[in-house]
Amino acid sequence: MARSPRPAIPAHNDGRQRVVVESIWPRVDDGQFAIKRVVGGTVTVEADVFADGHDLVAAVILFRGPRDRAWREAPMIELGNDRYQGTFSVGEMGTHAYSVCGWIDAFGTWRRGLGRKLDAGVDIALDLRVGADIVRDAATRARGTDLRRLTALAAALEADEATAHRAAAVFEVDVAALVGRYPDRSHATVVEPFLPLWVDRERAGFSAWYELFPRSLGGPDHHGTLADVEAHLDHVAGMGFDVLYLPPIHPIGRTKRKGPNNAVDARPGDLGSPWAIGAAEGGHDAVHPELGSVDDVARLASAARSRGIDVALDLALQCAPDHPWVVAHPQWFRHRPDGTVQFAENPPKRYEDIYPIDFESSDWKTLWKALFDVVQFWIGQGVRVFRVDNPHTKAFAFWEWLIAEVHRDTPDVLFLSEAFTRPKVMNRLAKIGFSQSYTYFTWRTTKWELTEYFTELTRSDQREYFRPNPWPNTPDILPEHLQTGGRAAFAARVVLAATLSSNYGIYGPAFELAEGRPRENGSEEYLDSEKYQLREWDLERPDSLRDLITRINRARRENASLQANTSLVFHPTDNEFLICFSKRSPDGSNVVLVVVNLDPHHIQGGWVGLSLGELGVEGRFTVDDLLAGERYAWEGPRNFVQLNPDVLPAHVFRVEQGVAVSSGPA
Amino acid sequence: MARSPRPAIPAHNDGRQRVVVESIWPRVDDGQFAIKRVVGGTVTVEADVFADGHDLVAAVILFRGPRDRAWREAPMIELGNDRYQGTFSVGEMGTHAYSVCGWIDAFGTWRRGLGRKLDAGVDIALDLRVGADIVRDAATRARGTDLRRLTALAAALEADEATAHRAAAVFEVDVAALVGRYPDRSHATVVEPFLPLWVDRERAGFSAWYELFPRSLGGPDHHGTLADVEAHLDHVAGMGFDVLYLPPIHPIGRTKRKGPNNAVDARPGDLGSPWAIGAAEGGHDAVHPELGSVDDVARLASAARSRGIDVALDLALQCAPDHPWVVAHPQWFRHRPDGTVQFAENPPKRYEDIYPIDFESSDWKTLWKALFDVVQFWIGQGVRVFRVDNPHTKAFAFWEWLIAEVHRDTPDVLFLSEAFTRPKVMNRLAKIGFSQSYTYFTWRTTKWELTEYFTELTRSDQREYFRPNPWPNTPDILPEHLQTGGRAAFAARVVLAATLSSNYGIYGPAFELAEGRPRENGSEEYLDSEKYQLREWDLERPDSLRDLITRINRARRENASLQANTSLVFHPTDNEFLICFSKRSPDGSNVVLVVVNLDPHHIQGGWVGLSLGELGVEGRFTVDDLLAGERYAWEGPRNFVQLNPDVLPAHVFRVEQGVAVSSGPA
Repeated sequence: MARSPRPAIPAHNDGRQRVVVESIWPRVDDGQFAIKRVVGGTVTVEADVFADGHDLVAAVILFRGPRDRAWREAPMIELGNDRYQGTFSVGEMGTHAYSVCGWIDAFGTWRRGLGRKLDAGVDIALDLRVGADIVRDAATRARGTDLRRLTALAAALEADEATAHRAAAVFEVDVAALVGRYPDRSHATVVEPFLPLWVDRERAGFSAWYELFPRSLGGPDHHGTLADVEAHLDHVAGMGFDVLYLPPIHPIGRTKRKGPNNAVDARPGDLGSPWAIGAAEGGHDAVHPELGSVDDVARLASAARSRGIDVALDLALQCAPDHPWVVAHPQWFRHRPDGTVQFAENPPKRYEDIYPIDFESSDWKTLWKALFDVVQFWIGQGVRVFRVDNPHTKAFAFWEWLIAEVHRDTPDVLFLSEAFTRPKVMNRLAKIGFSQSYTYFTWRTTKWELTEYFTELTRSDQREYFRPNPWPNTPDILPEHLQTGGRAAFAARVVLAATLSSNYGIYGPAFELAEGRPRENGSEEYLDSEKYQLREWDLERPDSLRDLITRINRARRENASLQANTSLVFHPTDNEFLICFSKRSPDGSNVVLVVVNLDPHHIQGGWVGLSLGELGVEGRFTVDDLLAGERYAWEGPRNFVQLNPDVLPAHVFRVEQGVAVSSGPA
Repeated sequence: MARSPRPAIPAHNDGRQRVVVESIWPRVDDGQFAIKRVVGGTVTVEADVFADGHDLVAAVILFRGPRDRAWREAPMIELGNDRYQGTFSVGEMGTHAYSVCGWIDAFGTWRRGLGRKLDAGVDIALDLRVGADIVRDAATRARGTDLRRLTALAAALEADEATAHRAAAVFEVDVAALVGRYPDRSHATVVEPFLPLWVDRERAGFSAWYELFPRSLGGPDHHGTLADVEAHLDHVAGMGFDVLYLPPIHPIGRTKRKGPNNAVDARPGDLGSPWAIGAAEGGHDAVHPELGSVDDVARLASAARSRGIDVALDLALQCAPDHPWVVAHPQWFRHRPDGTVQFAENPPKRYEDIYPIDFESSDWKTLWKALFDVVQFWIGQGVRVFRVDNPHTKAFAFWEWLIAEVHRDTPDVLFLSEAFTRPKVMNRLAKIGFSQSYTYFTWRTTKWELTEYFTELTRSDQREYFRPNPWPNTPDILPEHLQTGGRAAFAARVVLAATLSSNYGIYGPAFELAEGRPRENGSEEYLDSEKYQLREWDLERPDSLRDLITRINRARRENASLQANTSLVFHPTDNEFLICFSKRSPDGSNVVLVVVNLDPHHIQGGWVGLSLGELGVEGRFTVDDLLAGERYAWEGPRNFVQLNPDVLPAHVFRVEQGVAVSSGPA
């Protein structure tokens, strides 16, 4: 029924709460979902705070982390127009809460009036007694030195002296702060419910992902193993990646198995797609025998961790027809009128090697628990990162529950949402808990598109909950510009991904070698895709992008500005092929400026029009190219840039005031 | 403590609710406050509605009025990008609620797939059986003809005929609507809590207010009475006003009474300010003896109502030192250390004839009830409109409670907020229940200021809860432009107020006679203000604005476009002194275009650049001046206008396609 229009007389003292606190920011969907931060981050909170009449008000942020025994407070200052702002830092992972508390500043209001009366020369004798009462009341909440000082102040206000002399005491420098420490908050207003804040470990906000197919690491015509992956860790670590993502490692179904290049019928010996999960050897909690064992996973995770790398497993919640669940839990699948299980389809396309799970199953509670057990099983092996395959084709309510349930005991677990779909669907997945999200970056190529998209990601409300993780390529997506742009296009795209976003990833071997051959014209599939067969990659090839990628990742690690996104600013250029943007660290001490030539075929030059305020410089300054190792002296906002894609299509400059002496060529 | 990050497995069937409904619009402060409409109005609701995967969804608005026994529904259609929209009408006063319900459109999804398979020429035999199951399921919810049709459809889908022939049945014109009437909503998602909507009577959205001081109606040197007001009703009604607002009619305090022109000490015989409420004769529930009795109020309200006019009383919750409450309820006032009651002050200014009520009183519950009783008392005399004096100097929580409490039994009561203060404070008062609000219009004079301000009022979220009631003048405010602009300025300002806003008001006698003399230079107070003394007004003076005001009010009544604000659109002109705007009725059949010369001293002419789409015309059209009675044939967007302030500084055109024949000169 309609809400009653009839508030009872408020309980307790609510009726005397004269301060209004409104429009707290940030908040996601009216506070339904948590804003996100990483350990060590800050939250700047704003709110409208005001009271009836003309009294001054005061406000603080109230906040609390999972291990805090009491609410903590951060001061807020007025920005004008009744808007208040404050900032607090978060020091531990987990669920935090925050809100704003406002109250009448009785002392400040009284002191302001006193000042005006003094200016007007009216009698203040009685006012001083009012002030003494306020100060004495504050003293009842004070201890130690403050108590003595407040008591003395109250006495001074009532002393047997000239009123002007007595009044002078309240305008001394630190008196407002002294009395302000002990306000009467008995009628303070606190907005409830408190707003949720989820704090991840730092890698959620700053990570470089590298994807590879373990089975391709075995050398010529040999099926690779998890042990081969372990042997390859130094290659990945050496390039500066800190998340190693493996496509599904589970037994691969045999029924309706796909052959090379997605052939409908596999020939004997064909390996099938790792995403067709489940066979006689087991399902989501088993390891494909040719890759190794569950113990190998634990060993790999441990070896990776010793190098500062997280192993990310693929969470693809779908089953091959041979998956044990199909027999054990037929109610988890949709059945057709002829009794067969409904395979995946996007009419008229059929994916008969895949059975989707039916999230409308009447047995959904058991299903949810089983899926949770799968995640928990791999967490038990030391895995702390999951790349979730097509989360948008599974129920949102399930993910919201799963992620929260996992985070309850293991808040360090990260989930990357692989949803390339409609914007509101992608956003919803981020709201309900996914730590990072794939993006449309893969198809955003022009200056206008990139500027528009990353402005939205970093300036709109989205930035509070959606952490972009752009990938120039994936095993599913070889975008057209990489098919036609050659090595220069790969170079430009990895610089863009790695600097526009603090999180990024590449489908590694194919990217290092600038693999750009599509299955056929007009397709985004790779020719001879690793999804269906082994591929041998000669990662020592002289034209590899390994060195460039290594330099980019080093620049990211050495420059705090590249480790977050909220400071991203675009600077105009007079050439449509030149994109220019900068980031700076929270304390402003580190500034990086990036210029990329988006044309992989021609040298492009032009003038950039820098917003010097954003760069924190004026007059003459130095820009140090962290990729090419060159240094330029620039002056003022307009500077000329020229980039040859055959050499290096990008500058990644560290910007420093004056002529820098500390940083040499990279 | 922080919200738990741990949702339990959802109860009941929540886990199977695959549809997400987000971002319902409109809503005020996350649904904390009601949006407002008037009886007969409509609410257009939007929401993001989507599901995981690729299934089609369907959505309806759910809504309910105070007398509805069940939820009602209005259809929603997709606008694109997962946004859905629908509209419902409200037919009765009181608290309504609305939300959005979304579910998987199983039949639509299936039919879309079937169509694609047919196009691709793949086998659909099994699909037809799936469809038959869906239709049979819908039939379980149908009755009568629909049941028979659904049963026949299911049979047809499984008949012994060629599949293509069977499939054709589901693509017949009305089949989707037929099956769509009986969806499976067992896993539907409904957003809760429902959002609140408050519906007022029509006058809340469309009203013309006229303020007068009853005591000035007595003729030369005679104190007017409520009976004199009754005798004056025809004057007010004749001009087309429908709310007659009287300053406080209660006994006036004697202690510290103010003399003419706000003199600090009144002389014997001085009448004092009606806002200094309370004396030996009584307080807020008494009538000043020289004005009449409580019965006279009831008689006046009744006589006014018979002319379609509401009498609005002034609710000024403050007390003169002689008010009975000061002795009876000293705890409702703040006391100074010397035991005296704290008078009103805005340091260094002192208002010793006024004691503010202390809303932090420990006896606040009794206080609230007493104030409620005052309002209820006058409602008992037939009063249904209150103009609330300075509501922003009383606690917000009190007003929220009072208005809701009054509306519980008398939803037809309207409250006008007289708060000329900071924007967020004014907005808060509107959110917590005030029906209408005074505005900054009084000081907005340039084209830019008026355009900016009324765009904000009519296009921002504010329009959902803040109903502007602009006044060109009030007894407290004689703005500078009326002091210097003469009769032309008054004429322009009343046209602006009455056409920019569906609600407006004037401090009547002074306005009709273009009274523009300030108390002193630089003051917005009237010379010899009625606030402190009697004034005799010769309302039959030949230079009175009475006829113009009458024509404006007639235009408002005869043109539905002027009875609401959401359609307001400004059109550019090439002269800074010419402002041009239009409104159209919800059905588009009535369009009014206004052009005002903002310069009271000079003829101004220029070209207006009309947005013809907003006017609903093209090519040649007629504009009929409802004030001057002239008619012009216009063509295309650019037309020339010239206005002589000495004659009439404004056009109020009715716009009609082609050469109108029905409307003659006014």
